[in-house]
Amino acid sequence: MAEEVDFYPMWESLGMDTKAHDMLLGAVGQMYGDMFLAQQNRPQACDYLNVFATNLHSGEIKEKLDAKETGAAKKIIGSFCLYVPEEIVTAAGGIPIGLCSGADFATSEVEKHLPRNTCPLIKSFAGFRLGRVCPYIQSADLVIGENTCDGKKKAYEWFATQKPMYVVDVPHVRTDETKQMWRNEIHRLAERLEQETGQKITPESLHEGIILANNKRRALQRLSKLRAADPTPISGLDSLLLTQAAFMDDPVRLADAINKVCDECEQRVAAGEGVAPKGAKRILYTGTPMAVPNWKLFNIIEKSGGVVVGEECCTGSRYYKDLVAETGETVDQMLDDIADRYFNIQCAIFTPNHGREQDVMQMAKDLNADGIIDCSLQFCTIYEMEAFGMELTAQENNVPYMHITTDYSTEDEGQLKTRIQAFLEMI
Amino acid sequence: MAEEVDFYPMWESLGMDTKAHDMLLGAVGQMYGDMFLAQQNRPQACDYLNVFATNLHSGEIKEKLDAKETGAAKKIIGSFCLYVPEEIVTAAGGIPIGLCSGADFATSEVEKHLPRNTCPLIKSFAGFRLGRVCPYIQSADLVIGENTCDGKKKAYEWFATQKPMYVVDVPHVRTDETKQMWRNEIHRLAERLEQETGQKITPESLHEGIILANNKRRALQRLSKLRAADPTPISGLDSLLLTQAAFMDDPVRLADAINKVCDECEQRVAAGEGVAPKGAKRILYTGTPMAVPNWKLFNIIEKSGGVVVGEECCTGSRYYKDLVAETGETVDQMLDDIADRYFNIQCAIFTPNHGREQDVMQMAKDLNADGIIDCSLQFCTIYEMEAFGMELTAQENNVPYMHITTDYSTEDEGQLKTRIQAFLEMI
Repeated sequence: MAEEVDFYPMWESLGMDTKAHDMLLGAVGQMYGDMFLAQQNRPQACDYLNVFATNLHSGEIKEKLDAKETGAAKKIIGSFCLYVPEEIVTAAGGIPIGLCSGADFATSEVEKHLPRNTCPLIKSFAGFRLGRVCPYIQSADLVIGENTCDGKKKAYEWFATQKPMYVVDVPHVRTDETKQMWRNEIHRLAERLEQETGQKITPESLHEGIILANNKRRALQRLSKLRAADPTPISGLDSLLLTQAAFMDDPVRLADAINKVCDECEQRVAAGEGVAPKGAKRILYTGTPMAVPNWKLFNIIEKSGGVVVGEECCTGSRYYKDLVAETGETVDQMLDDIADRYFNIQCAIFTPNHGREQDVMQMAKDLNADGIIDCSLQFCTIYEMEAFGMELTAQENNVPYMHITTDYSTEDEGQLKTRIQAFLEMI
Repeated sequence: MAEEVDFYPMWESLGMDTKAHDMLLGAVGQMYGDMFLAQQNRPQACDYLNVFATNLHSGEIKEKLDAKETGAAKKIIGSFCLYVPEEIVTAAGGIPIGLCSGADFATSEVEKHLPRNTCPLIKSFAGFRLGRVCPYIQSADLVIGENTCDGKKKAYEWFATQKPMYVVDVPHVRTDETKQMWRNEIHRLAERLEQETGQKITPESLHEGIILANNKRRALQRLSKLRAADPTPISGLDSLLLTQAAFMDDPVRLADAINKVCDECEQRVAAGEGVAPKGAKRILYTGTPMAVPNWKLFNIIEKSGGVVVGEECCTGSRYYKDLVAETGETVDQMLDDIADRYFNIQCAIFTPNHGREQDVMQMAKDLNADGIIDCSLQFCTIYEMEAFGMELTAQENNVPYMHITTDYSTEDEGQLKTRIQAFLEMI
């Protein structure tokens, strides 16, 4: 279907640089083919991802713009982080989208506004904006930032010169006082969103927002459990992309697609069929989030004969492992429930953050991981710092551990391959 | 006097590595001679600084240990940041000291616990601890950290394995709610200090603590005003060290010494006498704090014929520009006054932080600066990020501006000299 529509008028109306965008789509398309389509023994239901990836900058965004056009939705609300609750955006009539930040673009332009020593995720969203190659950033009516790391916090000051922005203040310690502060912040966010969309949040709309997000989470929880089997029925690459899609895709369609993947995976597990041979080295990933199209590390691990069986990160278990309570009856109660659920995300911006180490060890056990690869994006201070404690915890638990620092370039692929192959042989 | 006492028993009792410490003292002593003693036309009253620098790791620390011995003070309380109010430490019977963090030490050991891409200030205090060469870190009964930047926040998690620590949570946005949260945090800090020292904070002791700190600030304010003269009566190096001393030296003695320097500077200004010739290019420094013995940049500027006339940083105007109200009558009221004063420090961890830009422009005007040098320690995300906005503000105000990123090594001295000389010629 997508091929029959001419998307250039849409891209042009969004102020995009269609020439640069063509090049970007070509490169990402090539990468998708080399990484995803080249996989062996892939579940057929993962074909959904091929359609999703093909439509990502075309049909997917058109769908959202059409929803605005018809009045089915009021505004497109962009964000970069788990701490912006999609439930509230949806309830206010907004369409929540995770903004592009997984590839280098317009780096020399970016470095006129941000330091060279900035993490690639931040440089990426700046570059996608400056290069005008992301239809999501272009079409976002409001971008919701969050005071998590120093880099994003300060980069949003510049990004606010580019797009209408609202920044949520996230606490960095967990106490009763900061929990209340965070609840207040979530209530203020709800007000701001109502103001933006002109649509009042009702108990019904917020309940529906909660159910929509929870259903995606339930489907991903189901998938996560199936990956404990040996052989594991689905690759880390496909699992990662299904979680990445949760930040962008239609929630009902995606939950349905994930459940179909799960149905097939159940059959595969029963039949002892896997994406990699039984006994392939099983890796638990932990670390910084992986935004589309940052698939480099997973591709290297899996092309080296390993298989990723879980992701402890924001584009992984932290997205789906906890549900928002579905029992709230008033908007205030539901907003508190949402705040409380998000307050417990084991993000490295918190100090201390030992819950993350516990989560990683539990996942390693539940998913029968042979080793942990803990990866930080370059210059990501908080994850780089936590890696030292994570390594000690892994040692105490006798789980092989490797730390990697990387960025979005391809320059270190050879070195990464060598290190990862050595790690897979050793464990 | 200091030479007559044998300090080795004291250093050994503090668990110090006296051999490594001898080397460190030798290197810093050499540096002090080359930088400070080599200055021309220095005010005589700055001889105080020679004594202070000589005694820094000997008589100064002995004095504090003696005060504990005699019961004149209860505990030595270390910190790394302006956000730990010395007033409260003093009032609880503690001796506040700013801990060593201005030179590289034991870097390879440090990198076993902290990432290589960590700012030199953080690596420094870790290295001074691991190398056991800082008598202040060794003798601190409690170290008070603060959740400012990501790097310090997470490094304190490791540092807590080395020293008893208490971490103050600093807000990152300025609202009525975060102001109240900060007041609460300051009240909790007071309780924690009382618990540590076993000494109750009274209205009298807290008032005295406020007066002691304010008197240092008044003296430094007086000095700052005198530096507006052309020729300026005192170097940036000496002014910087007087402010650095405010974090370590006896408060009454230091305030008296600064006032004596001011007396002499007043005479010099009246006589048209300066540390550099009239018309020497006048530089306003802004950026990351400079801990002892980080004098590299100021030395390069002043040896290149420029003169630093002001410092907008934590070891500069942010330390002394605002007084704590002296009118509070109850402990609670005074703690709130202290919280409010510290809440207004224009630190780059806040977002937004436009007050800093305004302060810099005001200082540039008041001090008749010919140009601004904005310097960030390497990997200091928040100051690196703010530099872009600072440059735009400087341009709008037609003030020449240069940004520098550096660390504690001497490797970039040649390059810095070239850049700074070019800047001085250009302005």
